[in-house]
Parts: sequence; structure tokens; C-alpha cells
Amino acid sequence: MLLSKNSKFVENPIRKLDLIAEKLSREGKNVIKLNTGDPARYFSPPKSLEKAYIKAIKEKKFFYSSSLGVRELREEIAKRYKRDYNLEVNEDRIIIAQGISELIYFLNASTIDKKDSAVLFKPFYPPYLPNLFFFGGKPLFSELDEEKDWQLDTDNLRRKIKREKKKPKYLLIINPNNPTGSVLDRKKLEEIVEIAKDFDIFLVSDEIYDELVYEGKFTSICEVAKGVPYVIFNGASKSYVATGLRLGYAIFPEEDKKSEELYKKFVDFASLRLCCNTPAQYAFAEALKNEKEHKVFLKKFLRELNKRIELSTKLTNEIECLKVKKPKAAFYLFPKVDFSKLKVKDDKKLVEELLISKHVQVVDGSGFGSPGHIRIVTLADEETLKEAFQRISEFFKEKENS
Amino acid sequence: MLLSKNSKFVENPIRKLDLIAEKLSREGKNVIKLNTGDPARYFSPPKSLEKAYIKAIKEKKFFYSSSLGVRELREEIAKRYKRDYNLEVNEDRIIIAQGISELIYFLNASTIDKKDSAVLFKPFYPPYLPNLFFFGGKPLFSELDEEKDWQLDTDNLRRKIKREKKKPKYLLIINPNNPTGSVLDRKKLEEIVEIAKDFDIFLVSDEIYDELVYEGKFTSICEVAKGVPYVIFNGASKSYVATGLRLGYAIFPEEDKKSEELYKKFVDFASLRLCCNTPAQYAFAEALKNEKEHKVFLKKFLRELNKRIELSTKLTNEIECLKVKKPKAAFYLFPKVDFSKLKVKDDKKLVEELLISKHVQVVDGSGFGSPGHIRIVTLADEETLKEAFQRISEFFKEKENS
Repeated sequence: MLLSKNSKFVENPIRKLDLIAEKLSREGKNVIKLNTGDPARYFSPPKSLEKAYIKAIKEKKFFYSSSLGVRELREEIAKRYKRDYNLEVNEDRIIIAQGISELIYFLNASTIDKKDSAVLFKPFYPPYLPNLFFFGGKPLFSELDEEKDWQLDTDNLRRKIKREKKKPKYLLIINPNNPTGSVLDRKKLEEIVEIAKDFDIFLVSDEIYDELVYEGKFTSICEVAKGVPYVIFNGASKSYVATGLRLGYAIFPEEDKKSEELYKKFVDFASLRLCCNTPAQYAFAEALKNEKEHKVFLKKFLRELNKRIELSTKLTNEIECLKVKKPKAAFYLFPKVDFSKLKVKDDKKLVEELLISKHVQVVDGSGFGSPGHIRIVTLADEETLKEAFQRISEFFKEKENS
Repeated sequence: MLLSKNSKFVENPIRKLDLIAEKLSREGKNVIKLNTGDPARYFSPPKSLEKAYIKAIKEKKFFYSSSLGVRELREEIAKRYKRDYNLEVNEDRIIIAQGISELIYFLNASTIDKKDSAVLFKPFYPPYLPNLFFFGGKPLFSELDEEKDWQLDTDNLRRKIKREKKKPKYLLIINPNNPTGSVLDRKKLEEIVEIAKDFDIFLVSDEIYDELVYEGKFTSICEVAKGVPYVIFNGASKSYVATGLRLGYAIFPEEDKKSEELYKKFVDFASLRLCCNTPAQYAFAEALKNEKEHKVFLKKFLRELNKRIELSTKLTNEIECLKVKKPKAAFYLFPKVDFSKLKVKDDKKLVEELLISKHVQVVDGSGFGSPGHIRIVTLADEETLKEAFQRISEFFKEKENS
């Protein structure tokens, strides 16, 4: 056997139909991809990012950066967190990474031994799970309640952790949530922090959608988690429309023993892969610096995103077997599918057949730990969304039990 | 314990003194860094790369690329291997990665279970080892003979593998070699291929320095390994002076069962981290396409590199306790240190003291598996090299036994 045992867990449900989609495209089919949360396919980043990227290239910043990342960028991130969340953090406690994807790897590689557990939400962002399984870990799922707008039952979570013989290594929240678009309010966050404190579990908060909230005020974990070991993951991909830059970051504001240990281990992992794309780091730094431009940009971007998710919610609910509420944040819909009326048996078959027969690519809920759902990305322009939902609607009609 | 057991192996000897060096710089010291093989600190990439990078940004290629990498880039790599090595390979058998660093991770993550072994050269490029240890693997070292220009004793290697109860998972060669700058000739490569075939071991050839050879003709593994499962690692960093782009690639030309398995697993790992920096991929594609420009560029680049390594060799040998022969390739010197005449006890102490007292950063041979040596990067301009060697020379004089 050439392959390692645990490498069998490595896959990405969001991209698993990509080969079929690509084949269809090459055959001349007009495939509509509503599977990846990639705003850069339909929007452009703030102007300053583009200009600074070109400047960095003209200035020949082609060298390796420090493993932690370019200092200017780390300083701008620290300033942003001071500005937006009143967080005091030294730029050396910020590590630039090749997207949050890489940080998920660092996290699991740094903490998980065989049979260790970690607390994850369900539904979850798919890459969390293969990374955990790959290191021999197992998830302790904290289920979000669809009937209550995907809210978290913290009492239930507390009971679950109590029952575990061995303390979970970390508790990972993604707020705002992917795929549900729900947002944890301040009170819930405080309850989560209490749990982390009571059980001495490291808290990880993936806040990549923190600026893409349509309703209500977003609370970052750093506003409530003082004195508890935690790390925040964020990046350029979503609110700076720069997925293809591959720039994420981790912030370790606390200086307790655990934060110190994990921070240092992340630095080691970072040094082993040398650095991230250097000119892109200068570009992101400049975009963060231009906070006024970003605010104007964000307002327009959010308005447009809101229109698209509203339209998508409406069109989804017009399909008899699908039901969804408009989410508070991000750009995903995660409708429940009523399979009782359908000839297709499950969500995995459904998304494959939808792609093959109607050339619309969405992701099965199973990939997110919630079978019986599908995830639809609502980033496309109005015309494309209408065309996609037209095809989805036809598909469901054809699949209805006669 | 928050940290996983094996994460203790994760570190990078090449960068471990970076924090001290940075501190010294901040204190106003003129630190000369001869520790990282980063040509982009002293040279510029071919013009077409810069222009295409800017074009990609102006065309707003900020989206996620396919996990395999941008097709145009993979096509240009396939063409380059056809041109230079007469290799027939489909572009879909090429995977773009975030530097060879990431490929080393993919390799070990894909193949190594606890107690598995892998054949490595000694001295070795440092990141190979932590990646292997991290997954519970152990190295089977094949020693390069310093007395014979760091050549490989294939008979000895064969005997070593024979003695192993369990077959090593892979045999990794780096050719041209880092840190020794030695090159494996065609005959040696054929012997290595024979060993891989006889013992049914997957062959991995890191050829990142393939175009930076001063003496003789370079042979790629793909010219001799037909019919044997193998993968080539290469990238943009060294011969396109583009370290900060973080672009490596893996080529799987063969279609046997093992190549197929490992290729597919690499694709899975690639999909889990989504993609590499997208605009940089378009830039590298264009630079590869402009083969004539690259040939002219390379000729000039090599001439300059040759001057610097010649000067460095001369200046190294003028220091009584150091001895080195001019290498055939790359931009490193790996001199032996005669500790019998010195007050410092070992290479680790030596490099630390050299940095602290003379502000010159080199790497200890121990990090490469060969204590008693140091690695000096010869990329700096003449003036900087002279200044650095002046300081190194003073250092050794001060450290001589009185």
C-alpha cells in the first residue's frame, strides 16, 4: 500500500463534482457553478488593492517574506481590529497564512493526536472534518437547530462535553456561519466562552464573513473572550473579494500558556512552508489601510449581495420541495429538501443529477454534515441566478413523484 | 497538553535564527543574511513574468483557480518538459502547488504511516525531515560522500534497503543537490531507477535547480525513469527568480497503479486547500511561454551566479578552518569546518555566535543532517559577499585556539 491510512479522509465535498462540471464545460455546455463561495467571479476587489498589487510587482517584491508575513500587513490587521472591535493586539501575534484552509491544517496538525476530539458545529464548513479525521481525531458535534434559525443550544453542548471522558482539544465556531448564514449573538458567544472557560477548551473562531452581515450587529469573539485562550481566523477572500490571493490570518491576542504554545507552533508550521505570496501581502495591507474606501466599497457590495440573496431566497421558496429563510449573513442558502415528494433518494444523488441533466452545480448537504439539504451560492448576477433557478425548478418538477 | 505529540518535530533550521536576526536589524545592525536561497533579494525575474502578472491583475483574475492549477500554466509546463527533456505528459498530470514546501507535505501526508520509512540523501534539504517525522516516519539515509564530490554510493544504498524489513515508501532525490550543489549524472540516475524498480519504491525527484547548472549537462529523472513510478517536483522560485510567488508543481508522467494512486491523492490534498495564488499562475505561464527570453535571461543569470559562487569559494578557502570545492550547480556552499583549531564546539553554536557577534546569518550543517559544516548562500552581490566573508574571516580568527 503506497497511501497512508488516514489520507483516505482527504477530500473536499465542495469541489468533488468539479471534474464532471469541467467535462460538461469542455463539451460546450453552459454550466452554472453555484458551488463555490467565490465573490471574485462576479465582483471586483477595492481599487486600492489592485493598485497596490501592481505597485508591489513594479517594486519587484518577488522575494520570500518573513514566515509570519509582511510586517506592514500584520500592522494593518492589528489596526483594523483596534478600529472595529477595540482589540489591543501586537502585530507579532498575527500570522499570515495561505487562506483559512491552511490555518485549519495548522490547527489540527498542531493539536490532534489519535482519538482526540474537537467540538464542531453541524452543519459545518466541509474542510474542517477531513483535516480532523486525517490526524485521527473525531468530532463532537454541536447541532444547530434549523427550526430556530440555526441557533446553538449551549445547554445541550455543555451536557455533551460533560459526558466526554477526554476533554476536546478545541471548540471551533464559524460566525457568521457557512453554510447557514446564521449569526451568533453576543449572549450566545458569552455562553460559548463560559463553556470554553469551564472545560478549559481552546476556542477557535472562524470569522471570515464578519463584514458580510445584512441584519443586526456582528460581535467578534475578541469582544467577549478576554482572559480565555482563543484564536481568530479571518482573511482577504470574502470582504475584499480576493479569494485567489490566498491570504488568511490568525490572531492570538491572549498571552496565557495555551495561547503561547499554539501561537509558537503555528509559527513553526509557517516557517516550514517559508511564506505566503509576497506581493499579494502588500496589496492586502494597502487595502486594509484605505479604510474609508473599504467602507464605501462594503456598503455597495453588501447592498448588491443582499439583492442577490433575497432574489435567491424567493426563487428557492417558489420550488415546492425546497424551503429556506433568508439568512442574516454571507452568501449561501441551505434549503431543506422535501424528499417525500421526489423520485431522487438523497441529496448526494440530487446534486449529481442536477449537474448532469441541468448543468447547475450546487453542493450536497451531506458534505456539511446535514443530509437532506443542498447549499446554493447566491453570488451570481440576477440573470444567471434566474437562469439557474429556472433550471433547478424544471429539475425538481421532472423529479416529482407522479 | 494542547499540542499534538508529533508537532514537536515541526521547525525549519534554515529560519530558526530569523528572530535573532530581526532583533539585531531592529537595533540598527547591518545583518547580512546568507541563510535563505532567495535569488529575488538580489535579482529580478524575466520581464515577461512581471508584465503578465500585472496583466492578470488588470484583468481581475482574483478568483479561485481550479485546484490542479490554471490550465494555461499546466500546458506551458508540459510544453517545457517536452522541449527540454522530450517528455510526453498530459497537462492534467501536473499539479500546481504553493511551492515545493507544500508538495513535501502532500508527499508525506499521502504516504507515511507510523513507522514507515523513506530514503533521503544526507545531507538533505531540511524541510524533508520534519515532514517525515511529523507523520511518524523515519528516514533511511543514503550518505553522500564528501571526499568524492558528494557522490552517491548506490551499492551501499542497495544493501541498506535490502536490510530493511519493511520496504521504504519513497526514495527522494534532490538533483542538483541542496546544500552541496552536486549533480547526479545519467549513470547514477540509472542506478537509482534500477533500485527503485528492484525494490518497488516510489521515486521522487526534486529538480528545483535543474536550470542552474554551471558544469556539464543536467539529466532529469524523466529521461531515464520510464516505466517506473515517479514524480518530479519543480517550480518558479529559483530559475525564474520568483520565490515570493509560492509556485511549485508536481509532474506524474507515468500511468501505473502507484502513480495513479499518488496523483489522485495529491489532487485530493490540493482540493482541500482550494488553490494557489491565481494571478501569479498566469504570470508564471507567460514566463514559461517566452522560452527565448528565458534562455537569454538564464544565460546572464547563470554567468552572474557563477561569478558569485566562484568568489565565495575562493573567499571561503582563504579562511583556515573552512574547506570547500566549487559546486557544479545551485548557489550554496557547504564547507567543512575544522573544529580542532577552534574554541567553538559545534556548528550550531558557531552559526549563532557568528550572527550575534558579526551579524552574518548562515545555517548550521546539523540542520542538513551533516554536523561540522555550515551552509552559505552565495547569491549576494560582490560587495556584500566581500563584506560578509571579511566578517566571517574575523570571526574565525577570534575563535582560534590561542
